[in-house]
Amino acid sequence: MVIGLLGFGTVGKGVYQVLSERSDVEFKYVVSLEKVELEGVKYTTDVQEILNDPEVDTVIELIGGLHPAFEFVSGALKAKKNVVTANKHMISEYYAELVKLARENGVCLRYSAAVGGGVPWLISLERAHRISRIYSLRGVMNGTTNFILDAMQERGASFEAALTEAQSLGFAEANPSADIDGLDASRKTTISSNVAFGVVVDGHEVDTFGIRSIRECDIKAASSHGRVCKLMGKGVRCGEKDEIAAWTEPCFLPANAPEAGVHEGNNLLSFDARFVGKESFFGPGAGGPQTGYAVAQDCLDVCNFHPGEYNREMRAVRLQNHLVLQSYYVRLQDSDSWLAERTEEVWESGVKTKPIPVSEMHAFARKMLAQGREIFFACIE
Amino acid sequence: MVIGLLGFGTVGKGVYQVLSERSDVEFKYVVSLEKVELEGVKYTTDVQEILNDPEVDTVIELIGGLHPAFEFVSGALKAKKNVVTANKHMISEYYAELVKLARENGVCLRYSAAVGGGVPWLISLERAHRISRIYSLRGVMNGTTNFILDAMQERGASFEAALTEAQSLGFAEANPSADIDGLDASRKTTISSNVAFGVVVDGHEVDTFGIRSIRECDIKAASSHGRVCKLMGKGVRCGEKDEIAAWTEPCFLPANAPEAGVHEGNNLLSFDARFVGKESFFGPGAGGPQTGYAVAQDCLDVCNFHPGEYNREMRAVRLQNHLVLQSYYVRLQDSDSWLAERTEEVWESGVKTKPIPVSEMHAFARKMLAQGREIFFACIE
Repeated sequence: MVIGLLGFGTVGKGVYQVLSERSDVEFKYVVSLEKVELEGVKYTTDVQEILNDPEVDTVIELIGGLHPAFEFVSGALKAKKNVVTANKHMISEYYAELVKLARENGVCLRYSAAVGGGVPWLISLERAHRISRIYSLRGVMNGTTNFILDAMQERGASFEAALTEAQSLGFAEANPSADIDGLDASRKTTISSNVAFGVVVDGHEVDTFGIRSIRECDIKAASSHGRVCKLMGKGVRCGEKDEIAAWTEPCFLPANAPEAGVHEGNNLLSFDARFVGKESFFGPGAGGPQTGYAVAQDCLDVCNFHPGEYNREMRAVRLQNHLVLQSYYVRLQDSDSWLAERTEEVWESGVKTKPIPVSEMHAFARKMLAQGREIFFACIE
Repeated sequence: MVIGLLGFGTVGKGVYQVLSERSDVEFKYVVSLEKVELEGVKYTTDVQEILNDPEVDTVIELIGGLHPAFEFVSGALKAKKNVVTANKHMISEYYAELVKLARENGVCLRYSAAVGGGVPWLISLERAHRISRIYSLRGVMNGTTNFILDAMQERGASFEAALTEAQSLGFAEANPSADIDGLDASRKTTISSNVAFGVVVDGHEVDTFGIRSIRECDIKAASSHGRVCKLMGKGVRCGEKDEIAAWTEPCFLPANAPEAGVHEGNNLLSFDARFVGKESFFGPGAGGPQTGYAVAQDCLDVCNFHPGEYNREMRAVRLQNHLVLQSYYVRLQDSDSWLAERTEEVWESGVKTKPIPVSEMHAFARKMLAQGREIFFACIE
């Protein structure tokens, strides 16, 4: 295969390292803001040059962000080039458009690196889905927030100290919003649900709450009830009409839950399916080498004519998060009648609710935040 | 694809259930000792009839055991038919011969169901191996022994009571030797090592010790040192000449080790590889539906021209188990000078040795058993 590589940061270097020694792979172009010198590889800043070159059969997109990544990838698909990308933001946002383009042009679109780092998560979902019926998926999907929660729980760090540590170790970005507000995990939940259930989820419908407002008292509340707090993404089939719910939120998990034992930047992803039951996949979350490895695996699948069944089905669904009931721990800075009506137990720093719909809990939290009131909540499993 | 199905027990029924509704799969023959009536499927007891039928492109072998399974499978490969099998005994015993036959005849030989039930273990090893370097693998690979150890540890059952319970629940065979003597786990270790390291291991060289002689005092010894006993299969690259060691034995694992949390009939399989680090796969071990699912996945891979890279490399190796040093817990019915020289600590019911070569520990245990002396040992991690 002849590759045009867009982006040469940590992941780009990783992909190049993994693939450059293979005889069946040729890197013809590399695009990067900074000049890159690689033997036998043409450096350019003009993506169009790559798209115009009929020798290039595959474009690897590692620029990240929505734009111009989306335009580059669309252009590549229209030019009938396979696309491999690690860009979860773009894939979760433009899933339907990009899958359609890939299909219309008879090329592959693969994005295994978008969820789970080097863990073979999406391909395992794809393989299960082709033969079985996946009932649900769940997981610790974001390494940064897991690192922060782990530091708070295991070492008694404050949220601020844990975040600063994660940033200094390169886990968290200078602007940590995508991680701590749950956006990254939410995008992974969206993509996983699309692949697992054969649907197109509107990522904006995935109810999402992060850990920005978690405090030591919340960790203590979890702990004194024998639980550990993790940020979880979840997707389930529900209702009588084969509907889908998908959301991302902190969860207080029993200490013996598999996810409770996931430390530092690791991920644990699980699905439950007909015939096989529950299967779980554990490994380091996204890091340069892991993401590079996942991108390289996609390239070999493209190269070996494994045509990326990721884009098989396109049933657009509206999420039905009101069909799933859960009990929540809620800490609100003041009192509220909605919450009082749903309170089942009063805990030290917050309350435990009766089982309530996921969508209602999230809507309430959004309302409180819009009013400038501090709130933290977590599903109690 | 047009299938001839050899065997219609639990797994055969599972495969048929998973695949029979697909339009791309036709079951043309079923071979079974008892008469089977399936619509549109010809029942026969004559395997040769299937091998002679040019319409059949794939044979699924679910008879089990070495003979006549080996002869049927060899015949099918020679007749240029793809073979999918769940037969770990045959694959571990005749790996080189069967892979060679498949290659010479340009057909696929797949056996994903041989290790890990429905968990995508061998295919994940295969995918990692094609692009990376797998350093080691390990796992709880046998559900029956895990069920027994779990019953002893969690519920205080005796070995005999736990074995009887496993038998009454259908986990263990009437003759439980393959499970409790570690043979089943050892075969899985052999096959996993072949796929992970791209080699051909002689299964008879895999040092193997089971749990037949484990007693409550051993469980107590593990427990009072903060450990949990599991039967583990392990394979590692070792030495300076890229050599391989592989063995199967009970291990006393720290209570927070991932494998320590594996209960009942579940499996946990892990590998450590360049670029990706440690990845783990958890799920129910072999059961009818899981094994049927794994066989069906292999069929779809064959059907989709995924040509079974399982049979890519054939470097025959001699195992070098003397290169790996471990500390062992050893309980011997009487005293022995070899053991006394290697003892580091005296525990309640046994001793803890200094680090000694795996091969020496196993050779000593075999010698003791040959002399009719009771011995149990476990690696201390």
